[in-house]
Amino acid sequence: MEDLHWKSAITRVEPNRIALRGYPIDQLMGKISFSQGIYLALRGELPDDRIGRMIDAILVSSIDHGATPPSILAARTVASTGAPLSSAIAAGVLAISRLHGGAIEDGMEQMLSVASRADAEKVTEAEAAARVVAEAKSSKKRLSGFGHRIHTDDPRSKRLFALARELGLAGRHVTIAAALEEALAAAAGKRLPLNVDGAIAAVLCDLGFPPSVANAFFILSRVAGMVAHIEEERHREKPMRRIHPSDHEYDGPAARNVK
Amino acid sequence: MEDLHWKSAITRVEPNRIALRGYPIDQLMGKISFSQGIYLALRGELPDDRIGRMIDAILVSSIDHGATPPSILAARTVASTGAPLSSAIAAGVLAISRLHGGAIEDGMEQMLSVASRADAEKVTEAEAAARVVAEAKSSKKRLSGFGHRIHTDDPRSKRLFALARELGLAGRHVTIAAALEEALAAAAGKRLPLNVDGAIAAVLCDLGFPPSVANAFFILSRVAGMVAHIEEERHREKPMRRIHPSDHEYDGPAARNVK
Amino acid sequence: MEDLHWKSAITRVEPNRIALRGYPIDQLMGKISFSQGIYLALRGELPDDRIGRMIDAILVSSIDHGATPPSILAARTVASTGAPLSSAIAAGVLAISRLHGGAIEDGMEQMLSVASRADAEKVTEAEAAARVVAEAKSSKKRLSGFGHRIHTDDPRSKRLFALARELGLAGRHVTIAAALEEALAAAAGKRLPLNVDGAIAAVLCDLGFPPSVANAFFILSRVAGMVAHIEEERHREKPMRRIHPSDHEYDGPAARNVK
Amino acid sequence: MEDLHWKSAITRVEPNRIALRGYPIDQLMGKISFSQGIYLALRGELPDDRIGRMIDAILVSSIDHGATPPSILAARTVASTGAPLSSAIAAGVLAISRLHGGAIEDGMEQMLSVASRADAEKVTEAEAAARVVAEAKSSKKRLSGFGHRIHTDDPRSKRLFALARELGLAGRHVTIAAALEEALAAAAGKRLPLNVDGAIAAVLCDLGFPPSVANAFFILSRVAGMVAHIEEERHREKPMRRIHPSDHEYDGPAARNVK
Repeated sequence: MEDLHWKSAITRVEPNRIALRGYPIDQLMGKISFSQGIYLALRGELPDDRIGRMIDAILVSSIDHGATPPSILAARTVASTGAPLSSAIAAGVLAISRLHGGAIEDGMEQMLSVASRADAEKVTEAEAAARVVAEAKSSKKRLSGFGHRIHTDDPRSKRLFALARELGLAGRHVTIAAALEEALAAAAGKRLPLNVDGAIAAVLCDLGFPPSVANAFFILSRVAGMVAHIEEERHREKPMRRIHPSDHEYDGPAARNVK
Repeated sequence: MEDLHWKSAITRVEPNRIALRGYPIDQLMGKISFSQGIYLALRGELPDDRIGRMIDAILVSSIDHGATPPSILAARTVASTGAPLSSAIAAGVLAISRLHGGAIEDGMEQMLSVASRADAEKVTEAEAAARVVAEAKSSKKRLSGFGHRIHTDDPRSKRLFALARELGLAGRHVTIAAALEEALAAAAGKRLPLNVDGAIAAVLCDLGFPPSVANAFFILSRVAGMVAHIEEERHREKPMRRIHPSDHEYDGPAARNVK
Repeated sequence: MEDLHWKSAITRVEPNRIALRGYPIDQLMGKISFSQGIYLALRGELPDDRIGRMIDAILVSSIDHGATPPSILAARTVASTGAPLSSAIAAGVLAISRLHGGAIEDGMEQMLSVASRADAEKVTEAEAAARVVAEAKSSKKRLSGFGHRIHTDDPRSKRLFALARELGLAGRHVTIAAALEEALAAAAGKRLPLNVDGAIAAVLCDLGFPPSVANAFFILSRVAGMVAHIEEERHREKPMRRIHPSDHEYDGPAARNVK
Repeated sequence: MEDLHWKSAITRVEPNRIALRGYPIDQLMGKISFSQGIYLALRGELPDDRIGRMIDAILVSSIDHGATPPSILAARTVASTGAPLSSAIAAGVLAISRLHGGAIEDGMEQMLSVASRADAEKVTEAEAAARVVAEAKSSKKRLSGFGHRIHTDDPRSKRLFALARELGLAGRHVTIAAALEEALAAAAGKRLPLNVDGAIAAVLCDLGFPPSVANAFFILSRVAGMVAHIEEERHREKPMRRIHPSDHEYDGPAARNVK
């Protein structure tokens, strides 16, 4: 019989002992946040509290954006047929794709390429960003992570960057994101602000994540919102109803502030 | 045209303003953890820090359990065909079903029914648990949340309950879980210890969650581990390889302690 | 290492030889229809041409029912995010669940139980059907496979039964379906006609399929329609558009007859 | 409210009338095969019997290839957790991706580009194929649709082409497939035969299908086999078993011939 033996560096499981990247999981429980656990699972090392808080902020930023995005509509549509929770979530996750959430991955690729270009061509990040924007313009490509259907000034982007600075985690890619925004404004004659996907992309680059896991953050975050929508669909709406994608109205708690 | 107008109480989205259950999302970012954000999304109110820490511990407990569980094998199998991240995650989520992760939901139903039985029959939780165990025995039903293929004494269950007590969050259903374990041991003549699913079930009941969202916690938690496995599959293994479900070996960091 | 050796009775694969249920697949190609191939895969034996034609009719009956059903909306929603074909199909399949397509499985269970009841209680199918309807009425359960949102007299049900009779394949369960329809009409005072799900259920019972594969026929059939919708979504609509679930209009070929 | 009115040319649904691409669906039932129905749904016109038979052969060719392919393993893995049929199928479909089934789409792109190159550069198909192979060699790209892990001479490819010729449906792309095989053999010094994906690709091109629907044929076909495997998993195996990807043995009917 063929030898199919293989190795994995993630978790060691023995009777009554489970160790994630070397750490006993029961020792991690209560000591680290889920966000730190995600970092540990993906990167192999325990991050400090600042990184944990930064990832918490990323994951909080995208929990929900109302009932209009395709991930929520797909999840509600499947939930309304009486399907189990995991089916509705899976359908929602499948809608997190190239044009929905995908800007995080594309944005990361873009920012990383501005950085390597600045290195290779021995220019500043601002100059490298200007070159990338000029090329995109001449080949009629859109840059990922800028502009939004609804928000002209996305409150989530500003807050993410402010927090990254506050925690001392804003690095080269946050600079590059700003440089790209400037270069885009200069080239287009009007400002197309960084959206939340672009801001997350910059911060994930600064935290050292590869673009291949970018969508995982959006998926984890949005699954939380999805479950809230699936529950609401199940308890508040008739099964098999026709779900209008935009003619819905918010009737939850009035505006309030975190104390 | 038919009137399809509908309402949702989750998120209000206006230009440059996004409010989750009434709270500006940029105000939440940096102030609350993702776990608190999940609670807010699902329950409509901001939980205190203790609840946030408790949910963090639940989500950390189930991030990964090695490469053998079906969710991980399904995700790796799909990843190995060159599929995008969201496809591999969706396949993994679909494996979180009745027999894998589902014990949390079933366990919650069971513990809630012990509680209502104690109320209805005016007996103690211990007596209600004994009655439920006796009936299960006579109708040859297995109770959910007890026993494990590998662990005779699941370190995650003990830690979850210790933390729940430490944080002052252990309530009636943690008591019921222990009562069920006792009653099972008395009926069977040997101890079948509470597993991590059963412990999560008890804590989620004490936190006031309905069983219908039980699997969401396992899904959120395990998606983090899934992504680590998908990345490892992509970078360490050959595409389209045959994935042995158990002949794999851990070669990650040696045992170490959280400082 | 544990022994994981297992057996499968479906396909033997050897170099340059592939045999489905014993038959060389290249010998089957060109000789049997896909519908006969499905029967062979699921049942282990080659069906005659009449059964092949009957399954063809079942699969043709449910290819599409416009853009309103949840499976189509879920598939289009995912397709509109730029996801690959298999992601869009998977999301559509996930919407084929308890309340959408699931009536075939429930209908089969129901008709099989009328049959076993007629045997056990030594009564006619008509009498057994009347008893099942009476019990359903008193326990306020709805029977599956009757009534339709749009069609008062589903042309697909009539055609399926006519064809089953024409081909000599209508058996006891087609009789039971009619008996249930009569009993329902007698009990309710008005006729709730058998819908296409109910008719497919009866024919699948007469062909000897178990209820556990019922949804497979609906899924196979509807995937064909789904792909047509996904293609139309990709080529005719803007990406990420908001998809109204019912405000759509047919603008394809005018009514025409098969020559 | 925004105008979301849209149009679809697939199916007109009116009370008691359903017309697919203009044809009453009850008129199609019993008259056309499912394969013809698929063509009608995707292309908008009714194909003749020969095309129906050709598509039947394509769909029969890929129903199953044993328990080793990732689509089957993913479906069995999910089925073994007690998930519903549609979840297991969806997981299997998600494994039909770039490296599994995807060669049909890539093969079609390749053959279409040989054809346009022959036109543009005014050379024969053989010469255009030789140029494409030379370029692929120099840029170290693999051609899709050639070679197989197990079969050195895939019986399905030969049968598909023989049937295409027999039915008078073999056209330019079947010629191109053969030319690519020749050019590959000449360039490599050894023959890498056309596999079933490559043969399907050529025939689908000759039938006029666009590459964007290529995977749909493989998906439809393999879903049939998947359901057979899911049923076998459910009825023959223990739930939650560890599924070895290759240590399985065929124990179905002995070799037999179609009469």
